[in-house]
Amino acid sequence: MDKALSRLKPRIANRMSDIVPFHVMDVLAKARALEAAGRDIVHMEIGEPDFATPAPVREAAKRATDEGKTHYTPAVGLPALREAISAYYQSDYGVSVAPERIIVTPGASGALLLAMGVLVNPGDQVLMADPGYPCNRHFVRLMEGEAVGIPVGADTAYQLTAEQLVGHWTDKTVATLLATPSNPTGTLVSPSSMHSMLDVVTSHGGRLIVDEIYHGLTYGCQAETALSLSDELFVINSFSKYFSMTGWRLGWLVAPETYVRDVDKLAQNVFLAAPTLSQYAALAAFSPESREIMHGYRDAFEQRRNFLLPALRELGFDISVEPTGAFYLYADCSRFTDDSYTFALDVLEKAGVAITPGKDFGAHQPEHYVRFAYTTSLARLEEGVERLARYLKG
Amino acid sequence: MDKALSRLKPRIANRMSDIVPFHVMDVLAKARALEAAGRDIVHMEIGEPDFATPAPVREAAKRATDEGKTHYTPAVGLPALREAISAYYQSDYGVSVAPERIIVTPGASGALLLAMGVLVNPGDQVLMADPGYPCNRHFVRLMEGEAVGIPVGADTAYQLTAEQLVGHWTDKTVATLLATPSNPTGTLVSPSSMHSMLDVVTSHGGRLIVDEIYHGLTYGCQAETALSLSDELFVINSFSKYFSMTGWRLGWLVAPETYVRDVDKLAQNVFLAAPTLSQYAALAAFSPESREIMHGYRDAFEQRRNFLLPALRELGFDISVEPTGAFYLYADCSRFTDDSYTFALDVLEKAGVAITPGKDFGAHQPEHYVRFAYTTSLARLEEGVERLARYLKG
Repeated sequence: MDKALSRLKPRIANRMSDIVPFHVMDVLAKARALEAAGRDIVHMEIGEPDFATPAPVREAAKRATDEGKTHYTPAVGLPALREAISAYYQSDYGVSVAPERIIVTPGASGALLLAMGVLVNPGDQVLMADPGYPCNRHFVRLMEGEAVGIPVGADTAYQLTAEQLVGHWTDKTVATLLATPSNPTGTLVSPSSMHSMLDVVTSHGGRLIVDEIYHGLTYGCQAETALSLSDELFVINSFSKYFSMTGWRLGWLVAPETYVRDVDKLAQNVFLAAPTLSQYAALAAFSPESREIMHGYRDAFEQRRNFLLPALRELGFDISVEPTGAFYLYADCSRFTDDSYTFALDVLEKAGVAITPGKDFGAHQPEHYVRFAYTTSLARLEEGVERLARYLKG
Repeated sequence: MDKALSRLKPRIANRMSDIVPFHVMDVLAKARALEAAGRDIVHMEIGEPDFATPAPVREAAKRATDEGKTHYTPAVGLPALREAISAYYQSDYGVSVAPERIIVTPGASGALLLAMGVLVNPGDQVLMADPGYPCNRHFVRLMEGEAVGIPVGADTAYQLTAEQLVGHWTDKTVATLLATPSNPTGTLVSPSSMHSMLDVVTSHGGRLIVDEIYHGLTYGCQAETALSLSDELFVINSFSKYFSMTGWRLGWLVAPETYVRDVDKLAQNVFLAAPTLSQYAALAAFSPESREIMHGYRDAFEQRRNFLLPALRELGFDISVEPTGAFYLYADCSRFTDDSYTFALDVLEKAGVAITPGKDFGAHQPEHYVRFAYTTSLARLEEGVERLARYLKG
């Protein structure tokens, strides 16, 4: 048998040629190697808050652990958590969302899997902005559908428009995914544009999926939830960003009522339930004490953005549309390079600053862009900018 | 737009007609309703240990929470946990498994998703035993593949044989999934049969996937890991059962070396990483104190099985092959009924005992079988058997 085994070639499913790794992992690996060799690296490539999960949330997890809350919850989540999320829509957005339509998931990843799973047949198309979060297109690919990336630029604040949806809609299109605020661009869809796009999608018999995982992290503006426009769209959200709970792997999906039964069925089968302790912990995320801490985090992000945005512009990066959400700046670096991937690795090696190359976010001019994440302290951002200034002058 | 919305029919992907809910949910819902009305129900339908997660594991989670271990881990898991699992294969099985081949996942569900994701193209067939764990076939369906359930009965201890694999292999077959011990039957694949089946699968150029999630829970025998036979197969395991960590959502996949890069890439995209606190907690699951507690749990399961197996046989349930693993008895109830689903609901209503109907586990004579789970105390099992005796006499 050993001979037969040694002849066995790995048979890898076709989808794996289309599902690409995060290129930032190359940056990260090189950064770790430099650090291991004694170099100091300013990390501006990391897509998660540097803040600790608020203490009241951590304390709630410890209490639940002591109380032995370690068994499965229902597949759609703890009833109390679904109610707490519903109450959050009421208090923060003034929108009524029935708890029955809220499905608690293992991160926004779980919510994306469920939404694509119930919507996308093989060959179906889903429209989305390019640049965008890479996993979005990979979830469509996983369902044997086709993610259609529509190039967006500074002229539309890196967001899709109703006109673009009309222009790209085919008889294979079943849904459109919007992200507001967007990763990597930090820009929002305006309420009027959201309304127009919903109109286009609906009139074509499709569904709108809105990624709102960076809600709560907006600066000088307040994001409205797409749920204020309709009960017939899908909204994806997460405890990872605003709530600073990345490692807890907890998010949620709001689905139209007619989809809830199927979403439940799929959740039962693909992940059984979200982590139990995380769910009990998240119950404490809506308390005034926790919200106070999160507001402090938000203010810190705003302060960092207010430093970093003009500083990068000063250095010659082109960021013509003001990013008002998330914790990213998507910067046109074409004044310095025509190859942002090599540029990012060079910046890391020569300046000791880690940034993410544009190619992680799509096929539309990635070579002209890099993403800066302000997920490190103001002092470190200042150090990073100084290093960049020296590097760009040299 | 409101009119357009009201005309919008839900478009639900075709796969959702093939992905069925757990029928035991009907039993559970009815049991909850009876309990709400004041009835006492003996629960023998629940597929998770009733025991608390061992205290040292819970304490480790609390320490990690205090230490702020709440950020993402690498997609494939904490290096220390991958090493601990590797050491477990060495200590408990005498098998050397490189930590690099061990991918930590959100439950065995995450491991199944990864294995099917890297192996199955649309139209590909995966062979598996019927009856079996229903999610297995649904994961194949999710990849647009075809799960081929092969009927198994008491004559082969409800496990597949090498002859059956030869007989069912087609040019579309790419893999075979075995579960040992099996849910719902509690039976194991013998080492010699595993060897023969691996031989068949390998000589046909396919891959073997072995579900070992009930390892550690065996009675009067010791399960061998399929990894002792080859480095070229996939093994799925979990912290849920033997380690009593269901709600923590933590499992692992052992993949052949040539697949690790793709498995990592898929993990990055579909779930980013397993829950961080669960991973730190699991580091304490291999300590002598934790193992001691788990051995106590295992002994309790054995004691329950040793009571329940003869008691059910005495009542007239046919369990001709001795189940030596997991915490299930798959009982032929055709002496009492030709419709085990209606029977299960009637037993619940009239006797106050909740059991799982065979139809949750496949298409092969499900109407003749029910599954008893011994995931409740010996005293409650005794009460359940008394009630069943009265019901069956009446």
